[in-house]
Amino acid sequence: MTENSFALDCPIPFNDYDKVLLAHGGGGTLTQQLIEKIFLPAFGNAPLLKRHDASVMDLPGTRIAMTTDSYVVKPIFFPGGDIGKLAVTGTVNDLAMAGAKPLYLTAGFILEEGFPLDHLWKIVQSMRRSANEAGVYIVTGDTKVVDKGKGDGIFINTSGLGVVEGKVDISPASVKAGDAVILSGDLGRHGIAIMAAREGLEFETTLESDCAFLHEPVLALLKAGVDIHCLRDLTRGGLASAINEIAQAGPHPILLDESKIPITKPVNAACELLGLDPLYVANEGRFALFVPKKEVAKALEILARYPVSAESRVIGNVLEGAGKSVRLKSVTGATRILDLLSGEQLPRIC
Amino acid sequence: MTENSFALDCPIPFNDYDKVLLAHGGGGTLTQQLIEKIFLPAFGNAPLLKRHDASVMDLPGTRIAMTTDSYVVKPIFFPGGDIGKLAVTGTVNDLAMAGAKPLYLTAGFILEEGFPLDHLWKIVQSMRRSANEAGVYIVTGDTKVVDKGKGDGIFINTSGLGVVEGKVDISPASVKAGDAVILSGDLGRHGIAIMAAREGLEFETTLESDCAFLHEPVLALLKAGVDIHCLRDLTRGGLASAINEIAQAGPHPILLDESKIPITKPVNAACELLGLDPLYVANEGRFALFVPKKEVAKALEILARYPVSAESRVIGNVLEGAGKSVRLKSVTGATRILDLLSGEQLPRIC
Repeated sequence: MTENSFALDCPIPFNDYDKVLLAHGGGGTLTQQLIEKIFLPAFGNAPLLKRHDASVMDLPGTRIAMTTDSYVVKPIFFPGGDIGKLAVTGTVNDLAMAGAKPLYLTAGFILEEGFPLDHLWKIVQSMRRSANEAGVYIVTGDTKVVDKGKGDGIFINTSGLGVVEGKVDISPASVKAGDAVILSGDLGRHGIAIMAAREGLEFETTLESDCAFLHEPVLALLKAGVDIHCLRDLTRGGLASAINEIAQAGPHPILLDESKIPITKPVNAACELLGLDPLYVANEGRFALFVPKKEVAKALEILARYPVSAESRVIGNVLEGAGKSVRLKSVTGATRILDLLSGEQLPRIC
Repeated sequence: MTENSFALDCPIPFNDYDKVLLAHGGGGTLTQQLIEKIFLPAFGNAPLLKRHDASVMDLPGTRIAMTTDSYVVKPIFFPGGDIGKLAVTGTVNDLAMAGAKPLYLTAGFILEEGFPLDHLWKIVQSMRRSANEAGVYIVTGDTKVVDKGKGDGIFINTSGLGVVEGKVDISPASVKAGDAVILSGDLGRHGIAIMAAREGLEFETTLESDCAFLHEPVLALLKAGVDIHCLRDLTRGGLASAINEIAQAGPHPILLDESKIPITKPVNAACELLGLDPLYVANEGRFALFVPKKEVAKALEILARYPVSAESRVIGNVLEGAGKSVRLKSVTGATRILDLLSGEQLPRIC
């Protein structure tokens, strides 16, 4: 679909206002128009359509997970996704990482005066498609408009609520010595797709973001009774940062085997060109899973059923002894510390 | 407390970094430092301290309310509050307006590169004090940093979750002909305080924002069994916009009596000076309540017990007949239509 066909679909007459005005955030008729013509038709569901300041829902359980993320990705449209798809996917995935079945999302938009309404329309449609795909509802929302030069087009906050069944306790504190570290697939495609789009880089093949939902394989693992100790999606800071956060929470060091970590040739080539380490590059459809060794075969068998985790494999394990470090056994056999970055590798990746 | 004493309290050494860097949003050691030194100590509670992407909690019921709001108020510090107090208060109040007991909040920060860390510290402390006062927990959070010139210091999203007891159905659709409209106090102090701070205006007395929690009187009304049809806090767009939104949802017109609507002399004077209509000016501690006539005496008796709603009074009623308009009987006796504003009266008021 071309940009133009989206523009034709948008129900706010672009001849009158084709850009966001400060008044769209003022609580008056233009705010109403934005809600009625763009948000309600796109996200329409019973709680949202009640149009109250808060939406009321019945839950299928009393153990819940909550998460929040703001999305400031630049550019807002990129190969494999856009800020709307990313906002829904990232928040659904954060709920999945707590072992929760995702149910309800909220959407908060901060728009810069002058932002094209057809871009907003396109992004909102993308959020709707993603929410439908994940089976979640966007039950309440909010829009603020800031003056030109005080924002950057569009920022989106999505907060999410899911229900946790049973006595699942997935957290860095549950990790134990001897646990295997499973990685759900190849690394680095989201970060590189964003960088390539931002810098106008051309590679032999177009690299698409790996942006994808992770809740299906996770819920299947839980349903099968796999004893999951920890889960973490590999977003900002990539695999290296996620594993470091987990190592810092627990008493044991973690050892990863570089030769087991899959990185595609185009990602490797782009990383070399850009001077990036793919272990620190953001992913939006990858996770690391910590399970006891005896659960590995069962876990891998289940993960293999889902395209998003079909390439899952063991990439390391939690060591005995004390220490909060992450060590990487390189392809040459030498072992080095894989630290948190102090600086900024890729700003505004999500 | 002066700015300086806050600065001394802030645990991140300002000699190293006294401003937000892009790296504070990069997922590396500076992000960790921000979380460990500022957010966790301030908001510390069991779910948050687990430091997972999503927080897991047990609820005392299965009927819930969810809400979300982004705060972009300018200036971020103003008489009677700041963006942090506003973010907690506004979201707690939105839950109260659905008849929910507020329980859990999420906090999403979008920081502009260069934002002073001591301001962040001050705002986060203010959020903590407000959350303590309301008895809610900030259970999960997120920080993004955007490049200088692509934001405006700090934007905060707070999403909230509360539990609704019983079969309460508070919504514009529940409003009936004959309902009384009760207003909880005087109008316009938040909007005028913001405008005065922004424009450097000096009045005889300093006007403070009315920013305050509304959940206590609302929960007391529900506990006493008052049959609440609708509730709305009078934020962006003020009383006139809130009543219009309710009128548009239902089949009956609403009539308000201007002589019953309390506006203080300083607010009236400031509105005249600034060319504003106080009926459209934002409040952050005021609400309108729709109840059947027979419930009015009981409702007013309960509202009078709480300082925030001690001045509650009936200001109008829902008429018989068809129509979605709001009419105002002025002090001179003439009746006019009170419409939604099409334009922007006060941008970035919340």
